Amino acid sequence: MRRMSGVLVLIFYILSLLLPLPTTTASSCCSIKGLSLVRNISELPQDNYGRGGLSHITLAGSAMHGLKEVEVWLQTFSPGSRTPIHRHSCEEIFVVLKGSGTLYLASSSHEKYPGKPQEYFVFANSTFHIPVNDVHQVWNTNEHEDLQMLVIISRPPVKVFIYEDWFMPHTAAKLKFPYYWDEQCLLEPPKDEL
Amino acid sequence: MRRMSGVLVLIFYILSLLLPLPTTTASSCCSIKGLSLVRNISELPQDNYGRGGLSHITLAGSAMHGLKEVEVWLQTFSPGSRTPIHRHSCEEIFVVLKGSGTLYLASSSHEKYPGKPQEYFVFANSTFHIPVNDVHQVWNTNEHEDLQMLVIISRPPVKVFIYEDWFMPHTAAKLKFPYYWDEQCLLEPPKDEL
Repeated sequence: MRRMSGVLVLIFYILSLLLPLPTTTASSCCSIKGLSLVRNISELPQDNYGRGGLSHITLAGSAMHGLKEVEVWLQTFSPGSRTPIHRHSCEEIFVVLKGSGTLYLASSSHEKYPGKPQEYFVFANSTFHIPVNDVHQVWNTNEHEDLQMLVIISRPPVKVFIYEDWFMPHTAAKLKFPYYWDEQCLLEPPKDEL
Repeated sequence: MRRMSGVLVLIFYILSLLLPLPTTTASSCCSIKGLSLVRNISELPQDNYGRGGLSHITLAGSAMHGLKEVEVWLQTFSPGSRTPIHRHSCEEIFVVLKGSGTLYLASSSHEKYPGKPQEYFVFANSTFHIPVNDVHQVWNTNEHEDLQMLVIISRPPVKVFIYEDWFMPHTAAKLKFPYYWDEQCLLEPPKDEL
């Protein structure tokens, strides 16, 4: 009996070497094991997550690196591309590294809908932050240059409420959770020990 | 009587225009009033706070901008300069913008003292984070270039415990609070309404 189970273990072991395990590949970015402490940013996973004109890299994250209180992204928006109109119940700080664009910000969270936002010019070597729950959108309105920013949020992973326009009621804004770059890590099933 | 109080208000108003109010200058960096939402980093207050070789700018902070959950600094260390050996009960993320240096990190917080730290090479376009309460030091060990980093911390304002060396017991590490750049804002007396 003991010898039989030993043979079974051996067969499973050989199979595990021969058969591709789809979850292994899918989850490779979601484990803190094997990630070095100091990471070269140019070697980190970068994707547009189905959003044209976006390049997103999570430099230090909740799902990927086990952080609990803060998360840092490097995002690049090609000319004309933008974030959705959205809000989140966390602090958010932007540091603009390259390019320029427009921040649209509606501070009237006590009204039933955001309303016409204020416009702010944002530019390389500038910094700004979004008050908790204020509805906002960042837009690369510079036709000639990419807009690159470091984005810092508290309370990760981010829970985003998306608006179709500035006059959509706050109560109708749609929760997108997990957010685009957290989907792969937060939605995948628990790993098979095999 | 009503006319008399009106004259008094007028006198106080004129005096307030003529007399220098020392607290106004000292507290100018500590109020969120009058600060624009989008700030040009090259126009923000920059200081070494008595630490040779350091340049510190708070891009978005607790004392200065009213943030409660996260704070962002831009720090530059000239060749040979370094942070103290220290720990803090918050998450900390570094993004290296320029130069290179060495991170010293002792993870043995369950021992009585930090002990000999591990050494990590950090370089432009790299990122790393310090686990909560791990004792660490960042040192510009590159003789030829400044080391410039964005530093992000949670739970501001930071409460730092400083060690004289790596074999000082954790219980002997000295609390420095408010920290250098928070001193002016956190230690100043409540403002005179005048």
